[in-house]
Amino acid sequence: MNLLLLQPEDFLDSARARINDRRLQHVLSVHRAQVGDSLKVGLIDGLIGQGRIIQLSSSQLELDVQLDQSPPPQLPLTLLLALPRPKMLKRIFQSCATLGVQELILINSYRVEKSYWQTPFLTEEKIREHLILGLEQGMATQLPKVQLRKRFKPFVEDELPSICQGKTNLVAHPYHAQPCPRGLTQPTVLAIGPEGGFIPYEIDKLADSGFQAIDLGQRILRVEAAIVAACARLF
Amino acid sequence: MNLLLLQPEDFLDSARARINDRRLQHVLSVHRAQVGDSLKVGLIDGLIGQGRIIQLSSSQLELDVQLDQSPPPQLPLTLLLALPRPKMLKRIFQSCATLGVQELILINSYRVEKSYWQTPFLTEEKIREHLILGLEQGMATQLPKVQLRKRFKPFVEDELPSICQGKTNLVAHPYHAQPCPRGLTQPTVLAIGPEGGFIPYEIDKLADSGFQAIDLGQRILRVEAAIVAACARLF
Repeated sequence: MNLLLLQPEDFLDSARARINDRRLQHVLSVHRAQVGDSLKVGLIDGLIGQGRIIQLSSSQLELDVQLDQSPPPQLPLTLLLALPRPKMLKRIFQSCATLGVQELILINSYRVEKSYWQTPFLTEEKIREHLILGLEQGMATQLPKVQLRKRFKPFVEDELPSICQGKTNLVAHPYHAQPCPRGLTQPTVLAIGPEGGFIPYEIDKLADSGFQAIDLGQRILRVEAAIVAACARLF
Repeated sequence: MNLLLLQPEDFLDSARARINDRRLQHVLSVHRAQVGDSLKVGLIDGLIGQGRIIQLSSSQLELDVQLDQSPPPQLPLTLLLALPRPKMLKRIFQSCATLGVQELILINSYRVEKSYWQTPFLTEEKIREHLILGLEQGMATQLPKVQLRKRFKPFVEDELPSICQGKTNLVAHPYHAQPCPRGLTQPTVLAIGPEGGFIPYEIDKLADSGFQAIDLGQRILRVEAAIVAACARLF
């Protein structure tokens, strides 16, 4: 927890916040902070700044909060990700929030097992929980927007054209691909397939929407590493 | 397991290999391969190619092996990594092997807890086990060389100068830093600190050895993600 992330409901008034949950435990056991210490704090979807501890016990923490700096900017990235196996989801949500992905759309694909869509990790509450952990790591406040699209064809045909419009649209797919571009600053959509990759039909549908195949290298990365590598190389 | 990685002792003769361990179980339960199918195989620290299944039962697998292609090249990278917390080590060994790190030197740092050096994950056998999993993922055969250096000062003063000589030497440290360079092709040494970063004394010692501080961005990444991001951006 590099940043103590506050929610509007933590505030007693405009400059005073009180917490008594997991964050308190972290401040006590990891930061080992004391009254008078200042912590880096942020308001969810808001500014970052300092929180001076004015009261601290094993049951609650009160902070005098001054929020006066912008959080680090997000990447201009919409990530279309074929739904990965459930046990990877927690880390992927965290990772996307840490990296500054603006929007994450989990999509279906032929090689996504149908049962994956039933996982309890896809509830709104669980998603938010892991996004917040990722923001705390990355010292940022902007929650990525997460959407689930369980049907590939209607999504690609009906929604994707407006998502893609005016953007650089890329799919990580190592066949007939160009090397991954570097140092992009423009709005970008990146599609990453499931284990085993998108099937040719899916690649064709993405190509119809203007997606260009890019190659992240000969070595096959786990999906979580592929997201980090793509963000680091593209931007 | 994108590549079935063979060891010299798996070979019955120059073109015939037999396995009966974890790899057999994976071929049976995940690949669901049958006699006559071909699998991508590689020889540890050797070539890659195809293995045609000539016998398959629940207790053993025999392959007709043809190794005729070079594995993907390694990155020209020596990674100096402050020993991370033990539970992260498995994934870091795997990740380094997948990415193609040539040499990984785990070093001490003021902010590394002494107890971390006692973890069972640092035995030669465990390290090799996780490197191999990483190679199977990355479809490569070259084992990274892993070394442990439990004392920072003797390592930096006595060994580091010859490791660094003629290379680009970088430390991920976001203060007085230049942006991370991109598209390097020359031999490079990259130092990554512990959670909380290297202390000023350590940064000074690295600077004495010619290390230039580089900045991977305002967002603080977990060490595992930092390794992936640095490799993707540097090379």
